[in-house]
Amino acid sequence: MERPRLGFWFEFASTYSYLTAMRIETVAADRGVDLDWRPFLLGPIFARQGWSTSPFNLYPAKGRYMWRDMERLCETLGLPLVMPDPFPQNGLMAARIAHAGRKDPWIGAFVRAVYMAEFGEGRDISDPALLAGLLTDLGVDAPVLLAAAEKPEVKIGLRAAVSEAETLGIFGAPSFVTADGELFWGNDRLEDALDWALRLTD
Amino acid sequence: MERPRLGFWFEFASTYSYLTAMRIETVAADRGVDLDWRPFLLGPIFARQGWSTSPFNLYPAKGRYMWRDMERLCETLGLPLVMPDPFPQNGLMAARIAHAGRKDPWIGAFVRAVYMAEFGEGRDISDPALLAGLLTDLGVDAPVLLAAAEKPEVKIGLRAAVSEAETLGIFGAPSFVTADGELFWGNDRLEDALDWALRLTD
Repeated sequence: MERPRLGFWFEFASTYSYLTAMRIETVAADRGVDLDWRPFLLGPIFARQGWSTSPFNLYPAKGRYMWRDMERLCETLGLPLVMPDPFPQNGLMAARIAHAGRKDPWIGAFVRAVYMAEFGEGRDISDPALLAGLLTDLGVDAPVLLAAAEKPEVKIGLRAAVSEAETLGIFGAPSFVTADGELFWGNDRLEDALDWALRLTD
Repeated sequence: MERPRLGFWFEFASTYSYLTAMRIETVAADRGVDLDWRPFLLGPIFARQGWSTSPFNLYPAKGRYMWRDMERLCETLGLPLVMPDPFPQNGLMAARIAHAGRKDPWIGAFVRAVYMAEFGEGRDISDPALLAGLLTDLGVDAPVLLAAAEKPEVKIGLRAAVSEAETLGIFGAPSFVTADGELFWGNDRLEDALDWALRLTD
């Protein structure tokens, strides 16, 4: 019997992806579900529907609510929360590194480190020195990964991931996709997505 | 000690409000929380941010996801689901009736009956005959309520509710507001909102 799998689609600029990123590896392991780490970019998807920035900036009431909701949820989860400036952050380089390393054993720890720097400490995740430091802290060869992030195959691979996300019907982050193509959107749906993945291999 | 209260802000055209409406009276009573039934209209709020219809129509990927998510959730909750045509429905008259009767003992049953007709049976909730039938089934004097819905004070009162919703920061439905002004958005947050209301009177 194959082990159940779940695709975790995340965008480094996404606030609610932070909540998921910090807990998904533990929660999925507890349930016996293997993860596919799928960094992608919402910018091109938003641009295609006419948005030039995050909907939380375009629609102020929604934005104010989101930050308050995040405050409450972070307090419940015991996570720090600092609003990065600017918001949204440019997560392109982080996403390229995560795409290059998506099957490496350090991927979960790297993703958590980026989100913690961004939303736990309010740091600028577009800074190559910051990303290099996070990789080094994890014992990963930072110069090799930063160089990998500039390789055409990685750039093209991340662009293909954005197209795949759109094909899967993804319009926000975090999103979860099961082996049969079922889509779940939002940190609130992580448990439902894991249940679905588990039922497929029952 | 005052009993805890929660404002339940609902829009009859809203799909996720259906999920909440069908369960909120029972869930709140079980927790000892009194409800304020607050019908309102999202149309004017959406219009002010440049939307001419539901975001689920404006953004097709989001719309497709919402209907699939509703299917899954309705199956879990044991609720029927029929997509009304057109979507969104015009819930103005239903909202005026609910505003007129918002403190009457039949309000919860009426709200459930409207949502069930709309999303459980796919019926047209702008039809006065349908609304009259639902009221009559509940033992309410339908002609009196239909006439009340046309009174200036009810029309003005519902319009004031929309302004109040905006002041409270409401941008979608269902929404929940506690006595201290804390806002919670979405059926997924009902339990959190009830917890908050209960903590206020601890």
